Amino acid sequence: MMYSLEAGGKRLRPILVLTAAEAVNSDSLARSQAMPVASAIEMIHTYSLIHDDLPAMDNDDYRRGKLTNHKVYGEAMAILAGDGLLTHAFYAITRTVALGTSPETALAIVSDLARLAGAPGMVGGQAADILGEQGVTSLAELEYIHLHKTSDLIVFSVLAGARIGGATQQQLESLQQFARKLGLAFQIQDDILDLIGDEAKLGKPVQSDVQQQKVTYPFLLGMEKSVALVERLTEESKQALADAKLAKPEYLLAIADYLMNRDH
Amino acid sequence: MMYSLEAGGKRLRPILVLTAAEAVNSDSLARSQAMPVASAIEMIHTYSLIHDDLPAMDNDDYRRGKLTNHKVYGEAMAILAGDGLLTHAFYAITRTVALGTSPETALAIVSDLARLAGAPGMVGGQAADILGEQGVTSLAELEYIHLHKTSDLIVFSVLAGARIGGATQQQLESLQQFARKLGLAFQIQDDILDLIGDEAKLGKPVQSDVQQQKVTYPFLLGMEKSVALVERLTEESKQALADAKLAKPEYLLAIADYLMNRDH
Repeated sequence: MMYSLEAGGKRLRPILVLTAAEAVNSDSLARSQAMPVASAIEMIHTYSLIHDDLPAMDNDDYRRGKLTNHKVYGEAMAILAGDGLLTHAFYAITRTVALGTSPETALAIVSDLARLAGAPGMVGGQAADILGEQGVTSLAELEYIHLHKTSDLIVFSVLAGARIGGATQQQLESLQQFARKLGLAFQIQDDILDLIGDEAKLGKPVQSDVQQQKVTYPFLLGMEKSVALVERLTEESKQALADAKLAKPEYLLAIADYLMNRDH
Repeated sequence: MMYSLEAGGKRLRPILVLTAAEAVNSDSLARSQAMPVASAIEMIHTYSLIHDDLPAMDNDDYRRGKLTNHKVYGEAMAILAGDGLLTHAFYAITRTVALGTSPETALAIVSDLARLAGAPGMVGGQAADILGEQGVTSLAELEYIHLHKTSDLIVFSVLAGARIGGATQQQLESLQQFARKLGLAFQIQDDILDLIGDEAKLGKPVQSDVQQQKVTYPFLLGMEKSVALVERLTEESKQALADAKLAKPEYLLAIADYLMNRDH
């Protein structure tokens, strides 16, 4: 569990949790209350990578420039490390109550995570991806996969931070739009970087999607339209962010810009 | 997910949740409030069986008289079905609030489940079992594996039902002892049935532990002492149950007796 948690990565999802908490409530207490939830979402993301990398799934040997979990510990322990991280994420969420979050809010975060990381969310997106590997032909199918495989955890991160910050229902709805579009832009950018990125910066081989004959946005739309779509989604996500009328939106805005312009 | 949930089984853990709720609070409302948690623990138990049966783990083709999940849907989908069930269990727990359970109690149940099903609990027991497969030589090691692989979910079931029924702290402690000893007796009985049980009643081949060279209680202690230990643990668990001074302990008592005398 620690091997994969400590393997690095951008920590985008925990940063979004902390930044969303601060954006809603600039009191620094909100940020520290959000810390267990920031840890929780990184555990979920890490478990999903460990299971995705298994021979029965994507069969990847490297992740973030290091050997994948099952290459080091064997498949059985990698499955269990994933199960353990997934389960412990829910424990981490309960710890936010000791820092002053209400049980109602903590339970709403448990419910969001179970939905957005589970069969109606990330696990469902992953299942659609596997079932569709030979047959994804439409943009609608690909969007479904990306929205659930990637956007749902981004949505969770922003909503959870905002809940801890004390967001109103209207703010939660605008932030959900923000995160949904940001997550989709993020995943399309991933598809683009797999084609034209720098292997050293990415920490994994490029053109792996092409080799695995994966259907991606650039494959379906072409590179130019894919780049334009990332720009459009980023603009729309910024508009939703403005609609949320947050106390301190600057860092969330900066993250949206960073993700659009990133090279890894 | 549904294929394995509907494959049958004793439903021991959900029955314990419902029975514990009713034992603490004979008002029938407690029992119906406990229903989402009863579903949750069966999802957890089922996910653990799906992952345990995988080729990288126990590599079993049959479970409850039916083909195992990965034999029907493939390994990738079986891993995801397990992940989906594990995640959805936490969603189910949050639903008990809509039936009148307080958010504090629901969150305590989330915390219990994350601990008892996770790395400090069932997942840890499973990892110890896999790591120890070549080297378990002492009763202490075997007890650790059984307590975490099996007892921890039994403990969860009884505690969760009792929490929904409104148990006092003293009752929770006595019930934890009851469930811990009952779970250990249950697992030793499983070891015994694997040696002398009836294949048709068990729904799986007997003597699989011997064939897989698994270290069991009968292997370490002999059959006679193992049978005596099941009896002693059952008596001790009944004593702990009496200490809990419950409104309606009869059904929990009956379950303890049934488990000691079962033939499958």
